[in-house]
Amino acid sequence: MRTLAHDIASASGTSVTVQGWAHRIRDLGKIAFVVLRDRSGTVQVVIEGTPDFTLESVIEVSGPVRENPKAPGGFEVAAESVKVLARAEGDLPLSVNGDLSSVALDTILENRQLSLRNPKLLSAFRLQAALLRYFTEYLNGLGFVEIKTSKIIGTASEGGTGLFEVDYFGKPAYLAQSPQFFKQAMVASGLEQVFEVGYAYRAEKHDTPRHLNEYVSLDVETGFIESELDLIELEKGIFTAIFERVQKDCEPILSLYGATVPTPESVARSPIIGYAEALDIAAKVSGKRSYEIDPACERVLCEWSAKEKGSDIVFVNAFPRRARPFYAYPDGKNTKSFDCLFRGLEITTGGKRINEYPMMLESLDHFNLKPEPIEDYLSIFKYGCPPHGGFAIGLERLTQKILGLSSVKEAALFPRDRKRIKP
Amino acid sequence: MRTLAHDIASASGTSVTVQGWAHRIRDLGKIAFVVLRDRSGTVQVVIEGTPDFTLESVIEVSGPVRENPKAPGGFEVAAESVKVLARAEGDLPLSVNGDLSSVALDTILENRQLSLRNPKLLSAFRLQAALLRYFTEYLNGLGFVEIKTSKIIGTASEGGTGLFEVDYFGKPAYLAQSPQFFKQAMVASGLEQVFEVGYAYRAEKHDTPRHLNEYVSLDVETGFIESELDLIELEKGIFTAIFERVQKDCEPILSLYGATVPTPESVARSPIIGYAEALDIAAKVSGKRSYEIDPACERVLCEWSAKEKGSDIVFVNAFPRRARPFYAYPDGKNTKSFDCLFRGLEITTGGKRINEYPMMLESLDHFNLKPEPIEDYLSIFKYGCPPHGGFAIGLERLTQKILGLSSVKEAALFPRDRKRIKP
Repeated sequence: MRTLAHDIASASGTSVTVQGWAHRIRDLGKIAFVVLRDRSGTVQVVIEGTPDFTLESVIEVSGPVRENPKAPGGFEVAAESVKVLARAEGDLPLSVNGDLSSVALDTILENRQLSLRNPKLLSAFRLQAALLRYFTEYLNGLGFVEIKTSKIIGTASEGGTGLFEVDYFGKPAYLAQSPQFFKQAMVASGLEQVFEVGYAYRAEKHDTPRHLNEYVSLDVETGFIESELDLIELEKGIFTAIFERVQKDCEPILSLYGATVPTPESVARSPIIGYAEALDIAAKVSGKRSYEIDPACERVLCEWSAKEKGSDIVFVNAFPRRARPFYAYPDGKNTKSFDCLFRGLEITTGGKRINEYPMMLESLDHFNLKPEPIEDYLSIFKYGCPPHGGFAIGLERLTQKILGLSSVKEAALFPRDRKRIKP
Repeated sequence: MRTLAHDIASASGTSVTVQGWAHRIRDLGKIAFVVLRDRSGTVQVVIEGTPDFTLESVIEVSGPVRENPKAPGGFEVAAESVKVLARAEGDLPLSVNGDLSSVALDTILENRQLSLRNPKLLSAFRLQAALLRYFTEYLNGLGFVEIKTSKIIGTASEGGTGLFEVDYFGKPAYLAQSPQFFKQAMVASGLEQVFEVGYAYRAEKHDTPRHLNEYVSLDVETGFIESELDLIELEKGIFTAIFERVQKDCEPILSLYGATVPTPESVARSPIIGYAEALDIAAKVSGKRSYEIDPACERVLCEWSAKEKGSDIVFVNAFPRRARPFYAYPDGKNTKSFDCLFRGLEITTGGKRINEYPMMLESLDHFNLKPEPIEDYLSIFKYGCPPHGGFAIGLERLTQKILGLSSVKEAALFPRDRKRIKP
């Protein structure tokens, strides 16, 4: 029976078997102190003589647990037998047990299989798993239905630029930029309230700390809404649920990063400001006028919100039609759409969608687009589609901003960027 | 305030507003009976005069709820006002409210946005969402960590045939056939127990009722196991948890399909038979000898198991090395790997993996493979990887076999096959 590192104290006085990686080895000649790392934490193991294994080897150690005030955690295992389950080569390309904060991101990503073993780096993905879980459980609790929709599309429903092409049995196909078409179809199918967790692909040449070419999109779409304000309320509910559970269950991870999550009260205080007003505020605060909500503007608006409104979150709505896709629900020259900015970064785009077929045809005309290439999409609206809307949260950006990571690439297990398709 | 169809009885005597699709219209001239369909079910609405909307239009009806023994469910809404939220064109390409069992699958899939509105067809995807939920909740409960790993790979770690090629900024990349590489890396990273729900891609030219070129793979990988028997136990636990919750919470969907799920007792009884023995049993039962476990053999083995062992599930282990990938843990001429067959169809492949670097190099040599193209993969083992293994369950196949669907394509919202990349 294996005992996990975090259960060692309660096994004091008994004999145990622990299994894990050799995290640290301090060889004093006659005895050696080995820190063994497993999924639950670390435990000190005392071995007679010189260990015949290298750092990161996987070992199995059996022996009694004894109290030792000098051991981290106050207990250690006195090894009676040591078995090497898998020997590691000695030439580790980076130090798993060290502080990797001064190692270049490229080195960390090139040696991803090894850098992920660093407990701090790995803990970011425990947090990410928790985010996935809390998001899903909250929406399941509201009666939303999870969907899984194809990432291979035959035609470009959202314009066509920025698509990766796939050779589909000799014919061109594309990787979907979002499940937009499908999630709208599933609202119209009668499910009404759906969500999807899946990859989205953007063949954009940006290589910045805020871009990934493949990212996990937390998509939500819901029917019978009045306006984008219903969607903003829903997103606030999601944030509140997620942040409360992170605070409660992921505190050790937040501590490692010196990070905090917004309180429910601060989420409730998040301002909703119109696009034009947002540009005015940003100009006033920074002394520099932007003509669109660019990255600098996102940062200024979040700083303003934190200072003036007591929230790390800002919702910007009433985007002009020219800044939104043809399916955004028009409101004069503007749209019933919104972005959500969190700690200086856009993490959500969403809005009410056009649901009536005649209005959709008018909108295509307004944008000088032809209906023929998107006939499948249009058929959603041709046969009765309720008023609806939705949004998508970028999982890696959310993770990045919760932990205060400097690049979104640090928040992807195996990030794909302009130049990186391995490991 | 909107009232849902399934809450009508409890609103009797009050005035309500219902919203949904015009599922049936029976126009008697002076009055019309309209069946309104929403996400919760259907409700009868009585309208004075001739409705000015077509089938599938989205309507909002307000009026008092009254008892009517002739109405389905015993209650109806007497319309005082009717608002058309979205008008449907009259030329429905298929009948949403009818029995689609005699409609060709091609027609159903070509008109997917509309055929999914059929309540029976749609309910299969409510079941599928439930499967996703139960799978995830069970593994989260065991302490497994959910991972999301890239579907774009630079090199072919599993051989290279059957890969879709992607144009990645002018360079060739591929869609991953499975998260094999990544989930093993994440066990070795220290998470030890991981799962992933994601798409897998197979560029195989089969066009059969059992193949999809893009499918949702429920992947599990876990460390510190002894043999594939530990994995089979884990999979039985997953099945038991899923089937119990389906039985409890999805009974109306099972009823629609005349379907049942295996009982916990029958899952526990599922036989584990070696590959050679499986071929012998199949030959004896069918009177025809197969030289591999082909589809006919899968059917015969499941019939045998149902009859002789009282289980719809059969595990086959001890596959010969030649029938498994190079990373399968060898056991003489065989491997510590297994398949799971359910109601005549393979729904899982899994096994213990090679975890020691020298053994991995030997295995590559045995298969006449070179280490250089898979250096990233090999580095997992080079730096200490615990004994481990895993498996993957095909979500669409599991859905298909629970409901008794004749093709796996019916169990994908927007299936991708040899010829189909739309809608």
